Amino acid sequence: MDLIFDAEIVGSIAFAVSGAIVAMERRLDFFGIIILAVITTVGGGIVRDLLLGNIPPVAFTDPVYLFVAIGTALAVVLLHKRTADKRVARILASMRYFDAIGLGIFTAVGLVTAIQLRPGEPYLAVSVAVMTGVGGGVLRDILANRVPLILRREIYAVASIVGAVIGYFAYRISRDFAILTCVVIVVAIRLYAIHKDIHLPNFREKS
Amino acid sequence: MDLIFDAEIVGSIAFAVSGAIVAMERRLDFFGIIILAVITTVGGGIVRDLLLGNIPPVAFTDPVYLFVAIGTALAVVLLHKRTADKRVARILASMRYFDAIGLGIFTAVGLVTAIQLRPGEPYLAVSVAVMTGVGGGVLRDILANRVPLILRREIYAVASIVGAVIGYFAYRISRDFAILTCVVIVVAIRLYAIHKDIHLPNFREKS
Amino acid sequence: MDLIFDAEIVGSIAFAVSGAIVAMERRLDFFGIIILAVITTVGGGIVRDLLLGNIPPVAFTDPVYLFVAIGTALAVVLLHKRTADKRVARILASMRYFDAIGLGIFTAVGLVTAIQLRPGEPYLAVSVAVMTGVGGGVLRDILANRVPLILRREIYAVASIVGAVIGYFAYRISRDFAILTCVVIVVAIRLYAIHKDIHLPNFREKS
Repeated sequence: MDLIFDAEIVGSIAFAVSGAIVAMERRLDFFGIIILAVITTVGGGIVRDLLLGNIPPVAFTDPVYLFVAIGTALAVVLLHKRTADKRVARILASMRYFDAIGLGIFTAVGLVTAIQLRPGEPYLAVSVAVMTGVGGGVLRDILANRVPLILRREIYAVASIVGAVIGYFAYRISRDFAILTCVVIVVAIRLYAIHKDIHLPNFREKS
Repeated sequence: MDLIFDAEIVGSIAFAVSGAIVAMERRLDFFGIIILAVITTVGGGIVRDLLLGNIPPVAFTDPVYLFVAIGTALAVVLLHKRTADKRVARILASMRYFDAIGLGIFTAVGLVTAIQLRPGEPYLAVSVAVMTGVGGGVLRDILANRVPLILRREIYAVASIVGAVIGYFAYRISRDFAILTCVVIVVAIRLYAIHKDIHLPNFREKS
Repeated sequence: MDLIFDAEIVGSIAFAVSGAIVAMERRLDFFGIIILAVITTVGGGIVRDLLLGNIPPVAFTDPVYLFVAIGTALAVVLLHKRTADKRVARILASMRYFDAIGLGIFTAVGLVTAIQLRPGEPYLAVSVAVMTGVGGGVLRDILANRVPLILRREIYAVASIVGAVIGYFAYRISRDFAILTCVVIVVAIRLYAIHKDIHLPNFREKS
């Protein structure tokens, strides 16, 4: 198998879990959970393909992402059936971990796709990588009517940007090395931010 | 006249009514009502054209959809001038009927457009059909700052998917048969869901 | 320097300020402020380029807009450090002024871009101009989870439409004359609307 494809499947599962958790938190019903999982999964790739002129987007020609998202959402719903309300805080926290994995993998996938299609354009590669990484989560949060995680968690877009920039240089060694480097850096920064709850003071508290 | 064009006009009117009702429910002013009606009307077609590479989208080259949406919104505002507040529940209910017609027609239009542009790709045809069908309503609800109907009413995307799949096979007989079949199935499923208020239990209630 | 480029920089600064103010009003943290400023700045241009088939969008190949948006957001945060809470009303009011400048400039930029790429299509030119003008602000408001300004302030889309239509005819004299005419008209209408607080009665009040 190809590393990009493997990565996309893992990233799809992670984003589908995050979408399903947000949907359950929002008290959406069964189909609402599946749909939000699907949108979170395919959103980043559709944004990437629209930006790069890859028409129609892969999500509309290859059903594998749809099936992975639906299967994952079903599994999450089944696993959650006995969860009590008081565990909501824990569920929410775990959502961020799955989101971090999806963010890292889709940043990496967006990066190498952009480099392959348009080599020698570092700004394009990094910006498309970041849009691919954050796209699914932003769509998920907009549809769930929440302020997107990217606007609330400060070390979020920065994690994607740093991973994409370093991954861009790592691509000189090999494509797969770039993917691995990018994923590891993005996820590591996000995990560090989640655990330490590091964040700059917000505007109001400062003033 | 062409059946696709006729269908698009009827679908445009239906979606414009749904957009105007949501705008009035949100207490938007006169221009807000018109703009939300326009966006609901043209949203699905723009999504379809971006996904299929039909650039610029038809909504930007043919003003007919704009005029239909504006005229419809004006008519809704005039008709509603004497509506008392207590009828809000009824207005909301009627919104779903208009939305159902728009959903059915735009699913069908998206389906046959995709089949004509890229024949022999059933997954593409169905997924573009569903995006075209749900696109206008999702944009309407996002802009009105509500959780989209597609996430709240379980038998919604499913109606569009079932109609698109059956319509895809009906296309072998003729394009117009596919349009009619798809519209009838989507609208019938939606009406059944609205009337019976059939829905799977939501996550919270279940646990 | 080219007038389009100069205009884009001024418009980028104005929209970045509006995005930063909305972000601070929403109590987003430091990075949230920067990201909302960036999205407001580049949103309209990305919409324009997707609609016109200008792929990848300029915002993804030329980093100048990103740098302008980040620099502007940093300046806004620094300037605001000592602002007391009671000035929030004034901040909100000033947001509309910056938004008005951005709306006018991006409408003009969208207009001349569309005319240059596809001359002789007035409807396309005006509709792409309006989408370019309102795109950044709509994305800003959706991400900040507010009902978009375009739906709440009646003389908003209308200002953009009137400016684009007159600018379209002004283009027969020269491109730069079209830009200046369009910007002046849009901004003048918006300022008039803001100061006089002119608005048509909303639906509810009327009924």
